[in-house]
Amino acid sequence: MRIMLDFGGMMADAVGHRQGLTVKQINAMSGPFKAVHQDLQQRRRNGDLPFYQLPYDQGALERVSKKARRVINECKDFVVLGIGGSALGAIALFQAFAHPQHNLLPGTKRKGLPRIFFADNIDPEGFSALLNLVDLEKTVFNVISKSGGTAETMSQFLIVRDRLMRKLGKRGHRAHIIATTDPQHGHLRTIAREQGYETLSIPPGVGGRFSVLSSVGLLPAAVAGIDIAELLAGARSADRACKKANLWKNPAAMNAVLQVLVYTTKKKPISVMMAYSDTLGDVADWYRQLWAESLGKRLNVNGRVVHVGPTPVKALGVTDQHSQLQLYIEGPFDKVITFLTVGRFRKTVRIPTGFNHIDGVSYLGGHTLNDLMQAEEQATEFALTQARRIHTAIRLPEINPFTVGQLLFMLEVQTLYAAGLLEINPLDQPGVEAGKGLTYSMLGRKGFEERARMVSSKHQGISSYRIMS
Amino acid sequence: MRIMLDFGGMMADAVGHRQGLTVKQINAMSGPFKAVHQDLQQRRRNGDLPFYQLPYDQGALERVSKKARRVINECKDFVVLGIGGSALGAIALFQAFAHPQHNLLPGTKRKGLPRIFFADNIDPEGFSALLNLVDLEKTVFNVISKSGGTAETMSQFLIVRDRLMRKLGKRGHRAHIIATTDPQHGHLRTIAREQGYETLSIPPGVGGRFSVLSSVGLLPAAVAGIDIAELLAGARSADRACKKANLWKNPAAMNAVLQVLVYTTKKKPISVMMAYSDTLGDVADWYRQLWAESLGKRLNVNGRVVHVGPTPVKALGVTDQHSQLQLYIEGPFDKVITFLTVGRFRKTVRIPTGFNHIDGVSYLGGHTLNDLMQAEEQATEFALTQARRIHTAIRLPEINPFTVGQLLFMLEVQTLYAAGLLEINPLDQPGVEAGKGLTYSMLGRKGFEERARMVSSKHQGISSYRIMS
Repeated sequence: MRIMLDFGGMMADAVGHRQGLTVKQINAMSGPFKAVHQDLQQRRRNGDLPFYQLPYDQGALERVSKKARRVINECKDFVVLGIGGSALGAIALFQAFAHPQHNLLPGTKRKGLPRIFFADNIDPEGFSALLNLVDLEKTVFNVISKSGGTAETMSQFLIVRDRLMRKLGKRGHRAHIIATTDPQHGHLRTIAREQGYETLSIPPGVGGRFSVLSSVGLLPAAVAGIDIAELLAGARSADRACKKANLWKNPAAMNAVLQVLVYTTKKKPISVMMAYSDTLGDVADWYRQLWAESLGKRLNVNGRVVHVGPTPVKALGVTDQHSQLQLYIEGPFDKVITFLTVGRFRKTVRIPTGFNHIDGVSYLGGHTLNDLMQAEEQATEFALTQARRIHTAIRLPEINPFTVGQLLFMLEVQTLYAAGLLEINPLDQPGVEAGKGLTYSMLGRKGFEERARMVSSKHQGISSYRIMS
Repeated sequence: MRIMLDFGGMMADAVGHRQGLTVKQINAMSGPFKAVHQDLQQRRRNGDLPFYQLPYDQGALERVSKKARRVINECKDFVVLGIGGSALGAIALFQAFAHPQHNLLPGTKRKGLPRIFFADNIDPEGFSALLNLVDLEKTVFNVISKSGGTAETMSQFLIVRDRLMRKLGKRGHRAHIIATTDPQHGHLRTIAREQGYETLSIPPGVGGRFSVLSSVGLLPAAVAGIDIAELLAGARSADRACKKANLWKNPAAMNAVLQVLVYTTKKKPISVMMAYSDTLGDVADWYRQLWAESLGKRLNVNGRVVHVGPTPVKALGVTDQHSQLQLYIEGPFDKVITFLTVGRFRKTVRIPTGFNHIDGVSYLGGHTLNDLMQAEEQATEFALTQARRIHTAIRLPEINPFTVGQLLFMLEVQTLYAAGLLEINPLDQPGVEAGKGLTYSMLGRKGFEERARMVSSKHQGISSYRIMS
C-alpha cells in the first residue's frame, strides 16, 4: 500500500504560467537534482547521514519493543519529558494511531495500554497540573534529551525526580525513569549511569528533527500500542522510492524540486501543510520543525549570507476552511499548499435523513461524514486551482503504520533534497544558540555571567513605547 | 488590572531603520487613523458594528448564566457542535481557564462541572470516538450555527439527534440540545422551533469571528465555570482605551497601525502570534481566523483588485523555540512577531537543586519553572532584536477573565482598524463561497447540480502528475 505525490495543482496547465510550473522548468532542475542526489548517496555511504539507516535497525526495534512491553505491563501512565524533536514525532504518531479519546477511555477499553502524556513545555500551570494528575507510583517518565543540556527537559527531570524520590526513595524511584539520550556522552548519560536508570540510545549524528524513527519516537509509539515494525517497514518502502536517481520516479526529490522552484522563482515564502484528517494533523507540527529548522538559515554552505527559508504553516481540513481558506483563495499569491488526504478512513459515519422540507439541510442525509470530508477536500482543491493558487497533495490510501512510515521518511528525505538545492546545511541550528546562552546567563550558569547585563540594559532602552489597555 | 501593548521591538532605535519604524512614520499615519476612527465610531453609533455592544448586553449575560447553571446541574458532558467562529473563541476561553487536565479530573475535583468537548471537525474517526465516549443520557449538545446552513455542523446535528432519539425518544431528546443561532431566521431557528429546543440568540450583524463575547462563546465558557461577567467587564475596560481618538493612547489602533505599516512598507507578509503560556496558546488560533478571514481579501472597498492580507501564524513559547525560532532569527526578514506574555502565573513550580558536579544541569536548581519561562521569553525577544527582527508584545499581568476579556476585545477592534487602514471590508468572506457551492453540488443539493461536473473533469485533466512512494 503506497502513498502518492499528486502535483497536478502545481502545474501551469492547471493554474497558468504566471503561478504554475512547466515540465520544462522541472526538467531544468535535473542537473542540480543529480548533483544533490549523488552528494546525499555519498554522504549516506560514508555514514554521515545516519537517520537513513534507522528503518533498518532491528536491534533498536527489539530493544524498544521489550522496554515498551515492560512499561505497558507495569504502569498506568506514561509521560514523555521532551521538547522539539524529542516530542513532535511521537506526538504525531500518538495522534495518528491512538484512539482519538485514548486518555479518557476506561482502562478496559484501552486494551491495557497506559495513558500517555507529552510534557513539551515548561508552563508551570500545565506541568504541575499534569504531575498532580498522574499516580507517581504507577507512572514511567521517559526523559528525552540527546545532550542532557536541554534546560526545559532537565528542569522537568529535576522536578520529577525529586517527587519520585520523596515518595519512593532513592532506590525505588529508579524504575520510574527511562532516559533516551546519546549512547556515550552528555549530562543525561552521566546522570543515568550514576542513578542506575534504564536507557535507550539515540544514534550519534541523528538530530532531534530526524529522530522520529529512532528510540526517541519509537518507545512512546510502542507504548501506545502502535505497530512500530510496520512503521519501519513503511519507511524502508519509501526509502526505495526516495533514493531513485530519476527525478520523475522519486517523490521526495520531486516534491523538494517543486517546493524550491516555487520558493525561488514564484515568490512563495509560505508553505502550508493542510491535513484532511484530525489524526494526521500533528504530522504538520512535526513537519513544521523539520522544514523550518532545516531550511531557515542565514548562511549557505559557501558562507554567503542568504537569509533563506520558507515558513511552514499548519492547517487542518475541513476546520480551517472556516478560518484560513478565505485568505488562501483571495489573499496574496504567496503560498503553496500541501494537502494530506486519506482515501479510506477507519470509521464510516452515516448522516441520517431528515427535515425533508428544508433543502439546505436535507441534502446531507444519506451521505456519510466520509463523503462530506472528501467532497470538501476536492472542492477546496478545485477552488484553489480556479483561483490560480498552487497546491500539491500527498495521498494516503489509508492511515496505517505502513503508510505513515512512508510519509514521515519521505518528508525527511525531501527536506535533505530541498536543503541541497538551496545549498544550505539542513543539520544545524546556529540561530538559537544565542538565545540559549542568554537564558543560561539570566539563570546564573557558570561561564555565561556577562550576557545578562546586556538584556537588562536593552530592556530599559525601549521602555517608552508602551500603551495600557 | 490592565494589559499593555509594548512595541519597543518594532522601532528603528531597537532594530535599525531598514526593519524598524520611527515615531515620524507612525505619526504620518495619524491622518488615515483619524479617518478610520471616525468611520468606526459613526458605524458603531449607527448600529452597523453590533459586536461593539456585546460586552454591555446584561440580558444575554443573564440568559447564558441561567442556562449554564441548568447544564452544570443536569449533565456530565457538554459537547459544542460548531466550526470556525462557532468554536474557536470558546476553545480559547476553555483552554485559558479550565484546569489544564479538566476532562481527566475525577468529578469531585472538577467542582461539579461537566467535561467539555468541542467537535469542530467532521473526521469520521474523531466524531464517532467522541460520540461513543459520552453518556448520551447525561450529555447536552450545544449546536452553534448562525444560518443553520453550515454543512459540517448540521451533519453533526443530524447524527446526534438520531442517536438521542433512538435512546430517549422524540420527546426525551429535546432537553439534550441547545441551539445557538439567529434570533429569527435560518434553518437552525426553524428546526429549533419545530422540535422545541432551547435556544440562545446570536445578535444579527455579529459574524462568527466577532462572536466570542456573544452567547456563542459565553455559554461554553460559563459551563466551564468561567466568570463571564468579569470577561465582559474586561472587554468594557478595553473598549474605553480602544475608542480613544489619540493614536498614542489607543492600543488597538496603535497595534493596527504598526501591523499595517510593516505589512505595506517593510514587506512582512507573515504575522506570528507567539504566546508564552500553554493556556493562552489557543488565543492565537482564534486570532488566526479573525485576522485571516477579515483581512485576506481580493477587492478593496473601492472594488479594486488588491489581493491583500498578512498570513497569521500560531507559535507557542517556549516549545516553538525548539521548532520555529531558528527560522525566525536566521531566515528571511518577512515576519513580525507578537508575543503574549504573562507577568504572574497561577502556579509556581520550584526546580529542586541537585547534581552539583554537573554545571550544565545544576544551575537550574533553586529557580522556578516560572523564572525559566520568563528568562527564555526575554532572551528570545533580545535575540530577535539583535538579529533585527521586529516584534511587539501584549503583556498580561496575569491570566484572569478580566485581562483575557481585554485581550480579545482589543484584538477585535485592532482588526477593524487594520481593515480600515487597508481599505477593505473586514466583515465578509466571499472567497469561501465557491468551495461551499461545489461541496453542495457534489452532495446533490438542489440548485447546485451543475458544478459537480466541473470538478470531476478538472480532476481528470491533472491526473498524470503523480508519483508513488
